[in-house]
Amino acid sequence: MSAPENVQVRLKERPSGIPDDATWEVVGEPAPAPGEGEVLLRTVYVSVDPAMRGWIRDRRSYLPPVEIGAVMRALTLSQVAESRHPGFAAGEYVSGTQGVQLYSVSDGKGLYQVDPKLAPLPRYLSALGMTGMTAYFGLLDVGKPKQGETVLVSGAAGAVGSVVGQIAKIKGCRAVGIAGGADKCRYLTGELGFDAAIDYRAGDLKKNIRAHCPQGVDVYFDNVGGETLDAALTAINRGARIPICGAISQYNEADEAIRGPANYLSLLVNRARMEGFLVMDYAASYGKAADEMAQWLAEGKLKSKEHIVEGIERFPEALNMLFTGENFGKLIVKVADE
Amino acid sequence: MSAPENVQVRLKERPSGIPDDATWEVVGEPAPAPGEGEVLLRTVYVSVDPAMRGWIRDRRSYLPPVEIGAVMRALTLSQVAESRHPGFAAGEYVSGTQGVQLYSVSDGKGLYQVDPKLAPLPRYLSALGMTGMTAYFGLLDVGKPKQGETVLVSGAAGAVGSVVGQIAKIKGCRAVGIAGGADKCRYLTGELGFDAAIDYRAGDLKKNIRAHCPQGVDVYFDNVGGETLDAALTAINRGARIPICGAISQYNEADEAIRGPANYLSLLVNRARMEGFLVMDYAASYGKAADEMAQWLAEGKLKSKEHIVEGIERFPEALNMLFTGENFGKLIVKVADE
Repeated sequence: MSAPENVQVRLKERPSGIPDDATWEVVGEPAPAPGEGEVLLRTVYVSVDPAMRGWIRDRRSYLPPVEIGAVMRALTLSQVAESRHPGFAAGEYVSGTQGVQLYSVSDGKGLYQVDPKLAPLPRYLSALGMTGMTAYFGLLDVGKPKQGETVLVSGAAGAVGSVVGQIAKIKGCRAVGIAGGADKCRYLTGELGFDAAIDYRAGDLKKNIRAHCPQGVDVYFDNVGGETLDAALTAINRGARIPICGAISQYNEADEAIRGPANYLSLLVNRARMEGFLVMDYAASYGKAADEMAQWLAEGKLKSKEHIVEGIERFPEALNMLFTGENFGKLIVKVADE
Repeated sequence: MSAPENVQVRLKERPSGIPDDATWEVVGEPAPAPGEGEVLLRTVYVSVDPAMRGWIRDRRSYLPPVEIGAVMRALTLSQVAESRHPGFAAGEYVSGTQGVQLYSVSDGKGLYQVDPKLAPLPRYLSALGMTGMTAYFGLLDVGKPKQGETVLVSGAAGAVGSVVGQIAKIKGCRAVGIAGGADKCRYLTGELGFDAAIDYRAGDLKKNIRAHCPQGVDVYFDNVGGETLDAALTAINRGARIPICGAISQYNEADEAIRGPANYLSLLVNRARMEGFLVMDYAASYGKAADEMAQWLAEGKLKSKEHIVEGIERFPEALNMLFTGENFGKLIVKVADE
């Protein structure tokens, strides 16, 4: 039996702005063979996340940078193609961090079995995966919303933001989303139950935030940074909490061009707090949170939307959709049939 | 008996940058007469504080702006010149917020009696006053330093910063101060017991912070903002706390020119927090804190240095010393003899 053909997307060159053709290299080669105690995984879905832009920067961070020539790091949903590991059987599905490639070998560390009967597989990369966990812990543990408070979230039609707003509603808060374009805004209020949505491309953002948050902002969950963070800072209440989840508007900027929040002294005037977090710190509590999220999904209180792009060779294109805002829901590349 | 001559420093015009001659007006007029239930106060010392620059801006803040034509707001140490209030006797000393003027009338609200035998009077505007309280609550309640951690403080030779570093030492931390000039740095390590001092005017600030904080920074107490805040953000540890006390480097900038911390995403990577606070929120605990500070002063664990400028007409000049860094210790204007 000959090894199946693997396809990998590798980092060829660090981009200085938005990644382009020179950034990536798509390479074919025979798939690896699993050794004793290992599994061969066939990737089905690859998660496309804003954090990826940070992973290919050459700088100190919470994970080492992806090396030039290495397979691009990515969260994945895979099927066990062959198992020489007692804990996994061929045919099972697992989530992991196997990278942007069709086949990979693992010793089982960092793999989690998922049940395709309980939820559609892509959902394990969205609401039931790191994306959902990020929204859950960022909002509840860092943002600490109280019933009746106003929660404002940017990137609200995105994977994390859409879940943040829905959890805010579940917790009895006013949920206001900021997104780009009328379609996304309609989706937030019409389908996801947000109380209001603000199109950052239309009109005066500061004014619109004040109009839709008449009681001020108690929690601002920030996914985008830049002007939006500055605008939100003008509307925060005393004791507000600002979980910093990301800053997608700044990820393609050179270090020296990153725009800091000029209105940060609003933190002082309002005795407010801006706090970063990383979902991986909550790993010990994922199980409990996933159970709660699954329950909300089953009850229809939480909706999850996945935006699926087909074909591993379209990963570079899919990643850039995050920066232009073209995606609508959790962005996932389908690299093989289930 | 004719009323004594009052002298007031009034806000004539809002400055667009550093306050200058056009900003202030010194006016003489007869002192007011106290009504029933009031006291006439003769101001002896006026506290000069960075927050004053904010008070004369025309913008929403935690206190209303000083109006054009009004006496400049200031914390004060005064003697009761005449009392028609049962709670105060002529000759007593009180701290309050009577503004930059020789004489004022008060109904007693916001006045606190101080004992000139327990400490030199200016100390009630420095370590035993709002300045000391700011350092105490900002460091202990917001910064929450633990024994063995590294506390970095900017404006370290200033009124608040010098107390922050000394309390950090009392709590068993490594205290590192950032100040301008070799004299101030020598003072921090030689007289106040800081473990290290960094002259921000000499050499590479980021490199020097790393050199003097070999274990990284757990608490960065920020008084200055700007480049110093950005440099500190490059050296914070996981879970670091950054109390935002002020941003004197930015106070004379127009709103649109304020420099936000471009490195704020270090908060995300390090799961760290930047938090504003205002000392007035701790009013209910001032007494307990002042007792503890007085104890430390008595034991010689805490030193307080006041920089006294003589003459009410020199208030404008004294205020600007804060922005050039000319002051050395808590800046106070002596407006009359004790």
